[in-house]
Amino acid sequence: MAHTRTASGWAAHDPSGVVAPYTFKRRENGPTDVTIKILYCGICHTDVHHVKNDWGSTMYPVVPGHEIVGIVTEIGGGVAGFEVGERVGVGCLAATCLDCEMCRDGQENYCDKVQFVYNGFFWDGTVTYGGYSDFIVADHRYVVRIPENLPLDAAAPLLCAGITVFAPMKDHGLLETPGMRLGVVGLGGLGHVAVKFGKSLGHHVAVISTSPSKEAEAKQKLGADDFILSSDPKQMMARARSMDLIVNTVSANHFIGPIMELLKPKGTMVLVGAPQKPLELPWQPLIFGKRVIKGSMIGSIKETQEMMDFCGKHNLTCDVEVVSTRRINEALQRLADNDVKYRFVIDIAGGIES
Amino acid sequence: MAHTRTASGWAAHDPSGVVAPYTFKRRENGPTDVTIKILYCGICHTDVHHVKNDWGSTMYPVVPGHEIVGIVTEIGGGVAGFEVGERVGVGCLAATCLDCEMCRDGQENYCDKVQFVYNGFFWDGTVTYGGYSDFIVADHRYVVRIPENLPLDAAAPLLCAGITVFAPMKDHGLLETPGMRLGVVGLGGLGHVAVKFGKSLGHHVAVISTSPSKEAEAKQKLGADDFILSSDPKQMMARARSMDLIVNTVSANHFIGPIMELLKPKGTMVLVGAPQKPLELPWQPLIFGKRVIKGSMIGSIKETQEMMDFCGKHNLTCDVEVVSTRRINEALQRLADNDVKYRFVIDIAGGIES
Repeated sequence: MAHTRTASGWAAHDPSGVVAPYTFKRRENGPTDVTIKILYCGICHTDVHHVKNDWGSTMYPVVPGHEIVGIVTEIGGGVAGFEVGERVGVGCLAATCLDCEMCRDGQENYCDKVQFVYNGFFWDGTVTYGGYSDFIVADHRYVVRIPENLPLDAAAPLLCAGITVFAPMKDHGLLETPGMRLGVVGLGGLGHVAVKFGKSLGHHVAVISTSPSKEAEAKQKLGADDFILSSDPKQMMARARSMDLIVNTVSANHFIGPIMELLKPKGTMVLVGAPQKPLELPWQPLIFGKRVIKGSMIGSIKETQEMMDFCGKHNLTCDVEVVSTRRINEALQRLADNDVKYRFVIDIAGGIES
Repeated sequence: MAHTRTASGWAAHDPSGVVAPYTFKRRENGPTDVTIKILYCGICHTDVHHVKNDWGSTMYPVVPGHEIVGIVTEIGGGVAGFEVGERVGVGCLAATCLDCEMCRDGQENYCDKVQFVYNGFFWDGTVTYGGYSDFIVADHRYVVRIPENLPLDAAAPLLCAGITVFAPMKDHGLLETPGMRLGVVGLGGLGHVAVKFGKSLGHHVAVISTSPSKEAEAKQKLGADDFILSSDPKQMMARARSMDLIVNTVSANHFIGPIMELLKPKGTMVLVGAPQKPLELPWQPLIFGKRVIKGSMIGSIKETQEMMDFCGKHNLTCDVEVVSTRRINEALQRLADNDVKYRFVIDIAGGIES
């Protein structure tokens, strides 16, 4: 497919941490593609990591953004299930092999050849560019529909933050059995949605955090049942062996040993954050309690659609601060400083300005 | 129960790493107890850690030993299922609360109040002393029967080394479904039994080790299907995403990240070793592959009996080097130096000498 369409967006050109307006090419709308006019794009912590090349894998210029929502403007001849004018979203996935066991089994997010919506390679070998831009051409197999009742800005972060915490909760039976005891470590973009999902599903939800200031918002604003200051050994010991599942959203370095002790025997901590350095893993809470640490990465497209439909049914969205395209760099900096409740979303269509 | 019986054994009195003859008291045989004349006792790496106080928890004098086999010499009035003269074994467990969810569910090894057969506290508050001694008084709920066809010396290490690797293999369905791909990290006391179990159960077994010299013994002596030198990135990459379960028996510090990559997506590494320092846990193999790290500690008594019966049926025992009671300190030192294939067993009844 020829890459002849001109897109306007924002790219980081070096590890300095800022993005600047950038004009680049996208492919023509192929037979299995849909073209989407982007209205909003969430800012994920992963964007900050890529902008700064924290993981050493950034291919500059990089156009970040994988919480993309907008309106379908064009549909390929081989596409079923989407209409022009429809409200849709694109998350982290751009392409997978479609042929391996994971792909065939509807778990394509774990495909060994997975390519992401930015800083990846599409099937034709071209680099992918993300949602900090005016439109995107996406293979329809990686596009989901957004329920009519959800505001698009507040729905955008569901495409990464939301599915990242929804998938492990589904995996561990939290969609079937209410009344489980869920712990959520970290109250940021991912954590606050995890609390909302947990409460919507009828579970007992405890927020575990190092910031005493988060107690009030966790309980009063988000409806958490309990708040545990992880730096207070007394509070931690009082909840030892009490939780079925802990969703750990923290990407800063932190000690997971004491948090593991909060799990019941055979309980699971799911890691969804990506710390720069390896975490320290003590054997005691694992071995004495037969406990489990598990990784989880976003979700499949099928799971993402299931989550969207769940959110539509429960009117569940993220708490966002919408910023104009003029303020992307300010937002990136404030996100790096943890100064947002709880997710920045760029109002892309508000104006392609510098 | 009065502690009026005089036992002869070997105890460590300080962290110097040696044991010396020691005379101490054991309780009278209570209504739920059996008294066992000890014939053999395996030497586990945990014994070395306790003798040297590596974990800071040793109560000196400590009489080590939790791979205890012998003959029943006395039975309490409330004991059913054992006879005088019977061949039995005692492993790591001395007492559990009998009342918690774990105890009621036949998983008493994960009871929060679990007490071990040495360096623990029995229900009456007295310190427990292990199997480096001429007899033991054990509550019958923590005693298993040893099949007649198994030699007692080679069966002794099944009580810790054996059950420690058997339980996670059972947990992961390896008793039901043959043809799974099992990795065993480390070829010592635990690892060599894991290979034997894996082959007896009809699985494809790969040994993962840092010692090239272990390839021949792994394949020729123990029947492993594959050997992977973990220091060779080529060998490691060639087996990426190939294994269903990895049993990691290594207690030395080592990098688990590259080993995790050997697992299929959603595969599990079970840690059964206890390194002195926390392991480094990188997020990439966990999150990109939805992989699992899990702890496992010995097994319940029910599982231990199941394993013994399995071993009886398959004539499966450990490869041991039997040492006289004169040579315990030499064996402890050689074990610390990894100089044993694969487990030392003390011939206790051969003579209570110094």
